[in-house]
Amino acid sequence: MTIRLAILTVSDRCAAGEATDTAGPALAARASEALGARLVAGACVPDDRDAIAAMLRDWASAAPAPELILTTGGTGLAPRDITPEATLRVLERQHPGIVELMRARCGARHPRAYLSRAVAGTIGATLIINLPGSEPGALESFDAIAVILPHALGVLRGTARDCGVRRVSRGTAT
Amino acid sequence: MTIRLAILTVSDRCAAGEATDTAGPALAARASEALGARLVAGACVPDDRDAIAAMLRDWASAAPAPELILTTGGTGLAPRDITPEATLRVLERQHPGIVELMRARCGARHPRAYLSRAVAGTIGATLIINLPGSEPGALESFDAIAVILPHALGVLRGTARDCGVRRVSRGTAT
Amino acid sequence: MTIRLAILTVSDRCAAGEATDTAGPALAARASEALGARLVAGACVPDDRDAIAAMLRDWASAAPAPELILTTGGTGLAPRDITPEATLRVLERQHPGIVELMRARCGARHPRAYLSRAVAGTIGATLIINLPGSEPGALESFDAIAVILPHALGVLRGTARDCGVRRVSRGTAT
Repeated sequence: MTIRLAILTVSDRCAAGEATDTAGPALAARASEALGARLVAGACVPDDRDAIAAMLRDWASAAPAPELILTTGGTGLAPRDITPEATLRVLERQHPGIVELMRARCGARHPRAYLSRAVAGTIGATLIINLPGSEPGALESFDAIAVILPHALGVLRGTARDCGVRRVSRGTAT
Repeated sequence: MTIRLAILTVSDRCAAGEATDTAGPALAARASEALGARLVAGACVPDDRDAIAAMLRDWASAAPAPELILTTGGTGLAPRDITPEATLRVLERQHPGIVELMRARCGARHPRAYLSRAVAGTIGATLIINLPGSEPGALESFDAIAVILPHALGVLRGTARDCGVRRVSRGTAT
Repeated sequence: MTIRLAILTVSDRCAAGEATDTAGPALAARASEALGARLVAGACVPDDRDAIAAMLRDWASAAPAPELILTTGGTGLAPRDITPEATLRVLERQHPGIVELMRARCGARHPRAYLSRAVAGTIGATLIINLPGSEPGALESFDAIAVILPHALGVLRGTARDCGVRRVSRGTAT
């Protein structure tokens, strides 16, 4: 089953046409290659909490909703960076493990990767993950977690399972 | 001093009698062996936020309360997995470090361990830690943090200390 | 540009004059040496949520505010430890990455470092980071993150940038 992917670029300058988003298209290509994901939605919004949250909610409530939303940009300490806060506002369940893996793997190569404030989590059956705004940073962060995404998305949509318990075998009653 | 332990198995299928909980008993045995912990309470509830939160609150307000509550199950991305959210609802103080250690150690062997959304923290003098639902996952996660639990529980009940400051020696005034 | 630093020692015993704060002065010396930071404020408060939060808010709203506030003490599991909760109350943006780096690096040497519940984040243009209360623990934790602090503070005050997007070159219209 193909993964439906949406990518939200968060950048004042891109939204104003003062800069070109290269991270978004690069992520779409990488996710297609690595996961066979198909881009079903893409947008660019400024570093505005309401605009980010509204777009995430909008996408997650579409029918069918994308299984995966990647955001790129706004996860650092710059005064306007607000993507994690906007994301937390809409998440129903947080996923600290995914972003811990991202920071641990990228940070092992260059400690500045730990400056990402990225969060992850779910709304309904959609997994949302924040990535950095720079093209190399976004790709490296995606690569760091790509290996666990197919299983994550399979569990989220109920086609894979984290087996927890042994089924009780029921004898045929007579 | 013996550690009083309670174990909460969170599983729709176990609660409905459709599956047998093996993680709970295995955890009790492992915690007895590793920490000398004594099981004082155990239960199985469905993946229901209110049921989980009610049981945790109930145990933590007993007299004497267990020093340690381990939950098993409901920490992943399956649609019904809600144990971390139920736990966060009752925690007074969160403990991100314990679950970071769990994911870092287990994830070093198999990256999927980072898919755990487990949280930890305290209510009163009780430490609550979420563990995965599979028996091997629960045991491996417990083993990853067992080394720091005796000190953690000692500090929590005030019998050990994280020495922070140098005592002022008070001279005898004349 | 010199970094303005404030250090808050959180300790019932220090606040009551029953113990001498050694972690605070040691941190000031280390931050001066490592970052060229200049101590502009320092205080000692008891392990009281309101007292801690009030001091952090007070410092962060000064003009000019310190770029960096380090707290020492109250991050563990002792019954009165409440520094992370007081800090979370005043933070506008959380920074999980900084404390993950701290615990990962210190914890690699001694797993008990994972027992720190430290949080980090920002109010306005001020970065606040919780550190342990013991002098060696505080210094080791500071050392673990010092390498990323100059860039972090530069981005926060807008003098450095996490380059996210390629500028659109605007041709001269004729």
